[in-house]
This record gives sequence, structure tokens and C-alpha cells, in this order.
Amino acid sequence: MDEKEISKAVIKRLPRYYRYLGELIESGVERISSNELSERMKVTASQIRQDLNNFGGFGQQGYGYNVRYLYGEIGKILGVDRIHTLIIIGAGKLGQALANYVKFEKRGFKIIGIFDVNPELKGRLVRDIEVQMLDELPEFLKEHKVEIATLTVPKESALEVIETLIFHGIKAIWNFAHLDLNLKVPSDVIVENVHLSESLMQLSYRLTHAENEGQDNN
Amino acid sequence: MDEKEISKAVIKRLPRYYRYLGELIESGVERISSNELSERMKVTASQIRQDLNNFGGFGQQGYGYNVRYLYGEIGKILGVDRIHTLIIIGAGKLGQALANYVKFEKRGFKIIGIFDVNPELKGRLVRDIEVQMLDELPEFLKEHKVEIATLTVPKESALEVIETLIFHGIKAIWNFAHLDLNLKVPSDVIVENVHLSESLMQLSYRLTHAENEGQDNN
Repeated sequence: MDEKEISKAVIKRLPRYYRYLGELIESGVERISSNELSERMKVTASQIRQDLNNFGGFGQQGYGYNVRYLYGEIGKILGVDRIHTLIIIGAGKLGQALANYVKFEKRGFKIIGIFDVNPELKGRLVRDIEVQMLDELPEFLKEHKVEIATLTVPKESALEVIETLIFHGIKAIWNFAHLDLNLKVPSDVIVENVHLSESLMQLSYRLTHAENEGQDNN
Repeated sequence: MDEKEISKAVIKRLPRYYRYLGELIESGVERISSNELSERMKVTASQIRQDLNNFGGFGQQGYGYNVRYLYGEIGKILGVDRIHTLIIIGAGKLGQALANYVKFEKRGFKIIGIFDVNPELKGRLVRDIEVQMLDELPEFLKEHKVEIATLTVPKESALEVIETLIFHGIKAIWNFAHLDLNLKVPSDVIVENVHLSESLMQLSYRLTHAENEGQDNN
């Protein structure tokens, strides 16, 4: 398969397929047709078939999908079939909330460090990990293989932190700071910006135009 | 314009346009060509023109866009040109983090109530709002016009809370609980599910396939 052809829209849907399939496994479902999957996910069956065909299919005509197999294969495509190490920079409310977000561990993301500048937080346990001071970060990055850095610091401090991260070879940033990092990092560093207010604005749009729409999904 | 024709992809891009235009205003930019906007946003200029044409255009051939005017018009389309009242149910770390997320207030979302079941949180001030107990919610909903309910409670408690919300006429739910509410609510209730782990899985995908991609945006 030529991965360059995989569109961003497909990549956005894959985690949803993965999540739904995980729920099916938990409910003991072993096999599902693209029609049933379609109904649950509110995506057309042909869309599902088309999306999965990007990766070579996985279904047998008339037999539907083997849930556990498909879950495993999509997990491989997403790269969540192995453990990713992750640190959180910013141990405020959001940083702590993320650290305690149980789903990450289930998905194979392992938090190995939490950092902040606030001396009052030093040594505090967040999900059994001691908060370290930000000036300990360079040493930590030298000693540990960190794949993903989560950024929950104020906009003002973000750029300095990013310089440190990039200097020490971090290649993936999960960014909650209010700035678009894509413009500030080298092209080999992957940034996933989370703009919570954009999701709220979509809700506002749908609320404002509610008369014109039926039930939607996301 | 026929609003039914506006695709979900366009609706997802509108908040980004709005955010970028807001940043341009803050930097004192008064006019911008679709090419410049395109370069900043990493969306093709023709995509931008096409998106905005859904709403009747706003640009003048050869003159580009008036930033403040376009910002205002997109704000109207998004419905963020007026105040939306919002409550937060679940005053844990995530609920408190959201309450303190300054951007919401700037976008016209006003938090008027915060609720939890934990008696230790009763009366605690979160962004100058006293945390109330969940059993006070029905009375609160009778007395206040609440447009959006934010849900940051555990999966187990979510359904009961939703019943209360729907019974009292709430039409929009911003859902951080780990269940897909679309399947559980009447069709006139709008739900925006935020699945943070999906964004992390997209990062994982991009990290896994990094050799094949250049810089991306989101």
C-alpha cells in the first residue's frame, strides 16, 4: 500500500473505528458486518469498506469482520500495538487531568514524567509519579527515551519548553498550549494541536443552526 | 444559502478560520489575501475561497479579505457573536481545568454553574463560582437558562446526569465522559463528544508513519 494516499480524514476516523471495536470486544461481539458497524458508528457502510480498503480490506464478502482481528490490525496501523512513553509538561489542573485520564494507559501510552515550574508542586504525586521541576527536564530527557511530550503550559512559556524538547530530540508534541506549534518546529517534529475551544465553537454552530439539522455524530 | 449543503468538514474548519483571524486582528493586520491566509493556515487558497463561498463569499477579487469583517461574519455563522450560558458537571481536575480555560470567555461562553457529587468540593470557588452539589442541579436548571452542559463525570454516572439534563430541556451537551452520547439522547439534543485519546492515537499514527510524511497541520 502507498501510505501517502491515506487521507487525513481516514486517519481521523481510524481511532474511532478502534474505539468502537474495543467496545464491541468488551461486549463480547466476535463478528460484525459493515452494515452493523455502520449503524453503530453513523458512518455509511461503503465509507467503512472504502476506509479499510486503504489498508488492504480485512473483511470477507458475506462474512463481515472478525472484531478482534480488525481491532488488532487497526491498532497496528495506528501504532498503538506497542507502548509509547510520554511526559507531561505543566502539572496544573489540565496536566493532572490528562495524567489521570485512564484511557491512555489502556491504549498503550505510558506516562513516565511530569514537570512544572511551580515549587509547591515539587514532589507531589500525580498518578504515582513525582512532579519534577522544569529545570530537571534536560537531564531527564538525556536519561530516558521519551517519545511524546504533552504541553499544558501557558502560551508564554511554551516556546522555551519546545526549544528544550527539540534540542533533546523529541519528535512528537501533543500540544494544549494556545499557539500553533506547526509554525515553530522543524518539519520532522510532529505536532498534534488540541484546541478545545474549536470543539465548543462547533457545538455553538450546531446549536445556532439546530433547526436545520437532524442528529449528527462525531 | 442552503445550510443543509454545508459539509461537516467545512464546519470543522470554520473555528480555525475564526481563531486565525482573531490572531491577525491582535497583530494589527487589517486585510489579507486568500493566498496569505492559505500560507498561514496550511489550507489551499482555493479551499478557503470554496469554504467561504458556502456563506456567500466575503472577499473582493484582487482586494483580499477585510480581516475584522470576515472575523465578525464567521463569528455570526458560528453563533459566537452572542453569549452562550454553560454549566460544568463534574468539578474534578478536568472540570476545573475547563472552567479555567480562558479562551471560552473570550469566545462568549459564560460558565454560570459547576456541580459535583463530592461533598468536599461543596462551596469551593472555581473561577469565582461556588461548586454546588449535583442534587441542586434540577432546581438550578429551573431557575436559569442554561444552553450548554459540559459533562466531565465518570462513564458510570453520565447517563443519570443526562436524564436530568434532558428532562429539563438542555439541548446541547459538550461531552468528555467516555461514552457516545449520540446513541442515548433524543434527536433534538446536540452532542459534541471530545475523545482526547483519539487525538493521541492520531499522533501515534503520525509518529509510526513519520518516515512517509512531511510537516502536517491540524
